[in-house]
Amino acid sequence: MVELIGDERLDYLLAEDLRIIQSPTVFSFSLDAVLLSRFAYMPVKNGKVLDLCTGNGIVPLILSTRTKGEITGVEIQERLYHMAVRSIQYNKLENQIHMIHGDLKDMPKKFGNNKFDVVTCNPPYFATTPQKDMQNINEHFAIARHEILCTLDDVIKTCSKLVNQGGKIALVHRPGRLIDIVELMRKYDIEPKRIQFVYPKQGKEANILLIEGIRGGRSDLKLLPPIFVYNEDNEYTSEIRKILYGEKD
Amino acid sequence: MVELIGDERLDYLLAEDLRIIQSPTVFSFSLDAVLLSRFAYMPVKNGKVLDLCTGNGIVPLILSTRTKGEITGVEIQERLYHMAVRSIQYNKLENQIHMIHGDLKDMPKKFGNNKFDVVTCNPPYFATTPQKDMQNINEHFAIARHEILCTLDDVIKTCSKLVNQGGKIALVHRPGRLIDIVELMRKYDIEPKRIQFVYPKQGKEANILLIEGIRGGRSDLKLLPPIFVYNEDNEYTSEIRKILYGEKD
Repeated sequence: MVELIGDERLDYLLAEDLRIIQSPTVFSFSLDAVLLSRFAYMPVKNGKVLDLCTGNGIVPLILSTRTKGEITGVEIQERLYHMAVRSIQYNKLENQIHMIHGDLKDMPKKFGNNKFDVVTCNPPYFATTPQKDMQNINEHFAIARHEILCTLDDVIKTCSKLVNQGGKIALVHRPGRLIDIVELMRKYDIEPKRIQFVYPKQGKEANILLIEGIRGGRSDLKLLPPIFVYNEDNEYTSEIRKILYGEKD
Repeated sequence: MVELIGDERLDYLLAEDLRIIQSPTVFSFSLDAVLLSRFAYMPVKNGKVLDLCTGNGIVPLILSTRTKGEITGVEIQERLYHMAVRSIQYNKLENQIHMIHGDLKDMPKKFGNNKFDVVTCNPPYFATTPQKDMQNINEHFAIARHEILCTLDDVIKTCSKLVNQGGKIALVHRPGRLIDIVELMRKYDIEPKRIQFVYPKQGKEANILLIEGIRGGRSDLKLLPPIFVYNEDNEYTSEIRKILYGEKD
């Protein structure tokens, strides 16, 4: 049994055989978050994993199928935090996933520095919006999508404090912010090591960036094979179907 | 008529209907240089274009089919410079392409700052080699491939001085140096605007990086569609055949 509030639904994560609470007017996870959950390095057994800007808990839920380690999610919006807590309970993952309602910028004070082996984050993509636009946007979406409560600098600085020396940080973002991200990573002693671009289809510009860095790592970057989301018939490619639905080749 | 020295050959540039002097023991152009020549923005009519580390003149020769503007090539190795001069003469392009035998680091003094609309460069890819390795490598190859006579910092600093405010700089390099390149570009006031990765084939990591920045440009990066060199049968893709041989779709 699960309590569903307002227009919330209990959706399937088919590939993981899990369920997740979503709401079309409050928060629904994106392909970006799913790709991040597949891209990030995971310690198979032990290890402590932190997911910032966790929303309705999509990333921790998927990561729980890839590691036996302890996963912590942090979300600043109480409404989304509450959705995540109920999804974790529904999936009986309370022993592996812990949710915190709070501001990511307060986490280094809360946990102390050098506490996690992996930190993941699907941060707001858009630099701060002018006040007038704000009036027309649902506040939940606005906070999740715009740098209103945290900037990219806040995110990367916080990741760098919380992760161990030699630990990994994985982000998903828009390709247009690549230069800002790698500059901030190096500013906070994180060396970018793996980058993967996602293209809507062959012949189109990339629209999703996946990037992983190592705190204190040495310079040695790999550009992973590109991911295409749709094929020429505008259907999901087999790679994406595998990620979303767990289909085999 | 053309003078060929030693093992030099007069090879075809099929797509451009030009010919170029090459030598297997001194210098042969690479796919990288051809891709750079196709990637770089070119002013169609007027405009001054500079190609640094021009080798046997491959980039200026191809660019001459894309612009009516004046093209200057700079090469530090006299043997390669001499090959380029003879190729330009053979193709009767002396009125459009001018070769300079010299060190790129001396060019800002020679030309003055802010003199070109576009600067292209296919620089040495490898950070300086230890002395002992040098003994086993052909000196011409070593200088073209290793940062012996110029570093990446030298290259980008020089490009930035020579290009106009608002002018474009296009480089080809290895993906592993992406972070260094974008950091140096911003250091010298060049904002990366277009990036394209080249993958040997589907499912493999990228092995060529094409990057273009604008001096004094504002942050707005595009990730162009990936280029694949070989198809699943290990033959050139139609995209590469078009670039190399001028084949139509």
